[in-house]
Amino acid sequence: MKERVREILSWYGSDNPGVLTNLARMLNHGRLGGTGKFVILPVDQGFEHGPARSFAANAPGYDPRYHFELGIAAGCNAYAAPLGFLEAGAAEFAGEIPLILKLNSSDSLLGGGDPCPAITGSVDEALRLGCVAIGYTIYPGSAFRNTMYEDLRELTEEAKAKGVAVVVWSYPRGGGLSKQGETAIDVAAYAAQIACQLGAHIVKVKPPTTHIEQDAAKKVYEKERIPIGTLAERVRHVVQSAFNGRRIVIFSGGEAKTDEAVFEEVRGIRDGGGSGSIIGRNSFQRPKDTAITFLHTVMDIYGGAIK
Amino acid sequence: MKERVREILSWYGSDNPGVLTNLARMLNHGRLGGTGKFVILPVDQGFEHGPARSFAANAPGYDPRYHFELGIAAGCNAYAAPLGFLEAGAAEFAGEIPLILKLNSSDSLLGGGDPCPAITGSVDEALRLGCVAIGYTIYPGSAFRNTMYEDLRELTEEAKAKGVAVVVWSYPRGGGLSKQGETAIDVAAYAAQIACQLGAHIVKVKPPTTHIEQDAAKKVYEKERIPIGTLAERVRHVVQSAFNGRRIVIFSGGEAKTDEAVFEEVRGIRDGGGSGSIIGRNSFQRPKDTAITFLHTVMDIYGGAIK
Amino acid sequence: MKERVREILSWYGSDNPGVLTNLARMLNHGRLGGTGKFVILPVDQGFEHGPARSFAANAPGYDPRYHFELGIAAGCNAYAAPLGFLEAGAAEFAGEIPLILKLNSSDSLLGGGDPCPAITGSVDEALRLGCVAIGYTIYPGSAFRNTMYEDLRELTEEAKAKGVAVVVWSYPRGGGLSKQGETAIDVAAYAAQIACQLGAHIVKVKPPTTHIEQDAAKKVYEKERIPIGTLAERVRHVVQSAFNGRRIVIFSGGEAKTDEAVFEEVRGIRDGGGSGSIIGRNSFQRPKDTAITFLHTVMDIYGGAIK
Amino acid sequence: MKERVREILSWYGSDNPGVLTNLARMLNHGRLGGTGKFVILPVDQGFEHGPARSFAANAPGYDPRYHFELGIAAGCNAYAAPLGFLEAGAAEFAGEIPLILKLNSSDSLLGGGDPCPAITGSVDEALRLGCVAIGYTIYPGSAFRNTMYEDLRELTEEAKAKGVAVVVWSYPRGGGLSKQGETAIDVAAYAAQIACQLGAHIVKVKPPTTHIEQDAAKKVYEKERIPIGTLAERVRHVVQSAFNGRRIVIFSGGEAKTDEAVFEEVRGIRDGGGSGSIIGRNSFQRPKDTAITFLHTVMDIYGGAIK
Amino acid sequence: MKERVREILSWYGSDNPGVLTNLARMLNHGRLGGTGKFVILPVDQGFEHGPARSFAANAPGYDPRYHFELGIAAGCNAYAAPLGFLEAGAAEFAGEIPLILKLNSSDSLLGGGDPCPAITGSVDEALRLGCVAIGYTIYPGSAFRNTMYEDLRELTEEAKAKGVAVVVWSYPRGGGLSKQGETAIDVAAYAAQIACQLGAHIVKVKPPTTHIEQDAAKKVYEKERIPIGTLAERVRHVVQSAFNGRRIVIFSGGEAKTDEAVFEEVRGIRDGGGSGSIIGRNSFQRPKDTAITFLHTVMDIYGGAIK
Repeated sequence: MKERVREILSWYGSDNPGVLTNLARMLNHGRLGGTGKFVILPVDQGFEHGPARSFAANAPGYDPRYHFELGIAAGCNAYAAPLGFLEAGAAEFAGEIPLILKLNSSDSLLGGGDPCPAITGSVDEALRLGCVAIGYTIYPGSAFRNTMYEDLRELTEEAKAKGVAVVVWSYPRGGGLSKQGETAIDVAAYAAQIACQLGAHIVKVKPPTTHIEQDAAKKVYEKERIPIGTLAERVRHVVQSAFNGRRIVIFSGGEAKTDEAVFEEVRGIRDGGGSGSIIGRNSFQRPKDTAITFLHTVMDIYGGAIK
Repeated sequence: MKERVREILSWYGSDNPGVLTNLARMLNHGRLGGTGKFVILPVDQGFEHGPARSFAANAPGYDPRYHFELGIAAGCNAYAAPLGFLEAGAAEFAGEIPLILKLNSSDSLLGGGDPCPAITGSVDEALRLGCVAIGYTIYPGSAFRNTMYEDLRELTEEAKAKGVAVVVWSYPRGGGLSKQGETAIDVAAYAAQIACQLGAHIVKVKPPTTHIEQDAAKKVYEKERIPIGTLAERVRHVVQSAFNGRRIVIFSGGEAKTDEAVFEEVRGIRDGGGSGSIIGRNSFQRPKDTAITFLHTVMDIYGGAIK
Repeated sequence: MKERVREILSWYGSDNPGVLTNLARMLNHGRLGGTGKFVILPVDQGFEHGPARSFAANAPGYDPRYHFELGIAAGCNAYAAPLGFLEAGAAEFAGEIPLILKLNSSDSLLGGGDPCPAITGSVDEALRLGCVAIGYTIYPGSAFRNTMYEDLRELTEEAKAKGVAVVVWSYPRGGGLSKQGETAIDVAAYAAQIACQLGAHIVKVKPPTTHIEQDAAKKVYEKERIPIGTLAERVRHVVQSAFNGRRIVIFSGGEAKTDEAVFEEVRGIRDGGGSGSIIGRNSFQRPKDTAITFLHTVMDIYGGAIK
Repeated sequence: MKERVREILSWYGSDNPGVLTNLARMLNHGRLGGTGKFVILPVDQGFEHGPARSFAANAPGYDPRYHFELGIAAGCNAYAAPLGFLEAGAAEFAGEIPLILKLNSSDSLLGGGDPCPAITGSVDEALRLGCVAIGYTIYPGSAFRNTMYEDLRELTEEAKAKGVAVVVWSYPRGGGLSKQGETAIDVAAYAAQIACQLGAHIVKVKPPTTHIEQDAAKKVYEKERIPIGTLAERVRHVVQSAFNGRRIVIFSGGEAKTDEAVFEEVRGIRDGGGSGSIIGRNSFQRPKDTAITFLHTVMDIYGGAIK
Repeated sequence: MKERVREILSWYGSDNPGVLTNLARMLNHGRLGGTGKFVILPVDQGFEHGPARSFAANAPGYDPRYHFELGIAAGCNAYAAPLGFLEAGAAEFAGEIPLILKLNSSDSLLGGGDPCPAITGSVDEALRLGCVAIGYTIYPGSAFRNTMYEDLRELTEEAKAKGVAVVVWSYPRGGGLSKQGETAIDVAAYAAQIACQLGAHIVKVKPPTTHIEQDAAKKVYEKERIPIGTLAERVRHVVQSAFNGRRIVIFSGGEAKTDEAVFEEVRGIRDGGGSGSIIGRNSFQRPKDTAITFLHTVMDIYGGAIK
């Protein structure tokens, strides 16, 4: 199994041993340690959607320590959250699970307009809190995309110099795109490509649909007969668009749905060569024990114990 | 009693001893010293509303030394003001009361528009003046919220590195909210959450009403039957939204009202688990001796000497 | 008399000996040296209004050396001007009169819009030229006020660290105010308060009228019966609004008027407790010998030699 | 042949040996090494147009290593790409082909408006990856041109100080120009001039047409009878506009077209004194062996082996 | 004659020996060396107007070396150009003519709007290239004037600290002015004053007309009967407006016109006390030998050899 970790690290030949070590920490941690697969617990909904919408369904989640405990107990590869949430547990759970500091966030008290999150953390804060990586969201298609790309660029340069890995959430959204286009296959593949070109080590995108948003792309998909009929095919295309599979690509879960729907989606991601999932609301908005069972099932699908 | 201080400090496990020391200085100071409760004297109305509207009702308050004397005599945990007011007394009253330097302020000579205060101080100025903390106001819901969040982030990183505590006034206001929504329970809880996620040690919000502003939140409050009928219940929800009570949350008094109305509100805050009050106009816009009596009553409600 | 200088310096307890020394240099210089009163010569009209409008009436004033000579001969406490004007004489007249470098200026070639001066100097330039203070204009009520406040804040922090005093011209103007409101008593008092809160050592405002601009203020002035009938009363209120008289407040002369009108105004400022005047056009737009006679009369009113 | 390289280097008399060495590395590398001619492989289409539109036609191109291999096998003088693509091969192919890090890029998910690329790399990143040069695109005629010029200026100053060469893509586009005007002869010559004045060592422009965009220019072209009838004449005029031929000017290929059309264009560039071509889509959007044959033909036209 | 140079240097008493040395280098160089008069060759038209409009009339001018040779052969006091043009000859002609690096430039590919040039050089670049001065254009009357003033201020502070002289092109233009107003006598005098107040050592303005643009100024010109009937009188007024002649003021030639018209203008500048001319298009848009004859005539008018 460790062979697979070494293989993955070999994709990152320009990175220093500090970055490789932190990537390895995630790859070797938890129930999927050593498989090259990832299940990451992200909890930024408190900032993004507000506390009640995020935690009332499972009230222990109001406590920041709960999510450390959940991530540790479930054997996730890493736990990702904004500054405040990590500060509130980083010392108590020091060294028990790799941490990813989310460096930008949006609240939802002001509707409308193209998205442009606020920067809410820094690389030095990530180091202070013992994190292995920074996380950053870009919104390709937003009028403010360049600001995000440029801020990410600076953070990425600093992170790599300081041996910190870079995880990029690439979520197309904004005036340049229709609602349907946000998860269109051409757009999702493009979003993965942009994140990789910006230097991300790990890219997080949404599972794509069969919709094709851009006319110029549509011609190519038809002419080249790129298969996009099944989720596995679409995932394969996104993974291919991430430097032909030489970057780690993981997929977000989105809104709560039935467990079986999640498992089916995970099978598609696995079969298409995706590196794993990042699952927030489906994890922490239910009691801890059922959450662990749920996450273990997801992990076992990725790990191969479950078909 | 010191046990409670130690317990509160244990919530801030990511902070250096410098920050813990300054938090302890506030927690251990004054009539409520050692109880874990706070009554803070804030005087930024001179900048926010102008001198006559702030001080004519009690003319000694034009003199910056008056507020130091009032805070000291009443036994407040701390005194918060902008640069000029603190400069005008910090040497004379050095070491007699913990000081909080307010780092941003708005004047009211230009009406309209979403709020965006000017930055009027710095962490180094706070250190120069012997302060234990910086204070900063954010306006979630304002079109300029991201500028405020990002400026606060930088100041917070610097303050924490230099051992200075961070107090955040989180006042929802702006184009994203109705007037009623500024004190809505969902918005107040969200405002507390945002301040905590941005790394605040102490959060100041307004006492919330039963109004629910956002539709997406309303569904959750109804579905999860979150109790918000009494002020104590609403305070409890806000405190829960501040990392399940693991951040200090204090409440502002707002405009002048009858003393009994204030005491009743304070009982609600106390019963809901709030950490205290920050009381400006109700304190310094009356003669000093009655102000002290008034503040002692508030403190005794928090301290338990008065039911 | 030196007693009065020491008393004034005692108001600035947060400042380092460098700043106190430079304040003392102005307080001890010239015909009013030691009285605690000020008459300052400011010459920024060349930048603000253009050369002919400023100097044609008294052509020797085109030469920057003229104003040094005038300030020295008249015994002014200090001479204030923009970079170019000070550079053109600072070496020749080194040490003969305290200098104030004006750090921002507006030209009048582009009309309309809320005012926002350009920054045209720096603290280090002030040091290079041997100045005792920097001067900076803020326009409360302008849409750009926050930019001015924040730039001033940075300059003030730097100046104080380097032992340089800070003189703030606080001139309400802009979309937030009516023309009449620019010199309204409530606005003038507010303008003084803002400058003090921003950390100014010396505040310059315009002599206020009996007009009250803001409704919220009007209620307070009426309720508290603040006396504003005479200029002396209004000056007293402005001085009170400047930290209860614990900041130096001086008044500008404005456009040229009859000498007797100026003297009458000066008597009002003196009787209201103002610290002095800053007189430009009435000084340098007439022949030097009559200017000196005129300035000596003003000084003697402040000094008490003339009733 | 080496004589020609020395001659070209003599044009750059203000540059330090570090820059000259890196220019020489490109001039001496590959099939055209020593001739003073260039064929550069640029692959920034993944970012600019998305992955499928760029690589589906020749799927191995999804893999960043493919382009290193293609550039090396074809004997290009250099390979240019954005951060992510270079990072994914710079270690594996270290020292095998001179690299140019593209420092700004635009994606095409948000249509409309004047172009303003995001900065996506830095001089220090170029050094980290072993590059010989930075690449930067300016869009003269865009409302954001000054931002691009000023960013380029800073990068250029840093690059030259650190011994890194500067390649500028100068592509007129934006509100100042008609579509036809983007490749007008007057505009192309002007674009070359601007890049040279900004300090570029190597300028890349598009092959110009006979259209003249600006009236003021038209008068001059007619009065001075500047010959622009053939591509060779137009190229000669552009080269003359690049400091009378004392800057390296290379031409882009643009959209895919027939090979013979490309070869004909290359002959025109060669005959007009252009220094070479930068050929992306015509190179990597076909199988590697035919791409190599194609590129060798281009090189041999430049090198003189083919008429 | 050297006496005159010492006298001029005495105007700059605030400057360090480095700046004085570089001013002296220009004052002592060329055919007018030692006379206190200047003829400067500026070549920024390639950037401002494009290459063909600038150089087609005299094709050798496409070569940057041509202008060094022209300036040297004609005995100009200095040669001014943007970065690229100076880089292309600074080593070859090192020490043969004082160089001025123009630090901002505009291209003319995007029409309309108030002018705001891009910054295209730096003080350190000027030092790298062996320049004696930086050049910078401000456009008083433009909506972006403050940006220009503030950028110039920073560059000026840096230049003076590093011993580099500052030449300011002060060209009123923009929404604040009518077309005729750009060269109005009141505006030209004001433009000279602004440049001086911003700290320029040498000011370049256009020859003014008898038009008076601003009403407030008109009253003064009439009341004070300022003589503006002849060019000499207007130049005298501009020179007086430049610190009563204690700053070097030179005049631009503008568009090509007959030689005799230029000579007549030069006589007016000389008789009004102007320090010289800066002549671009009239110099380099004709064959070199006639250009030299032309420039020598101009110089001899200034030097007194020709009436």
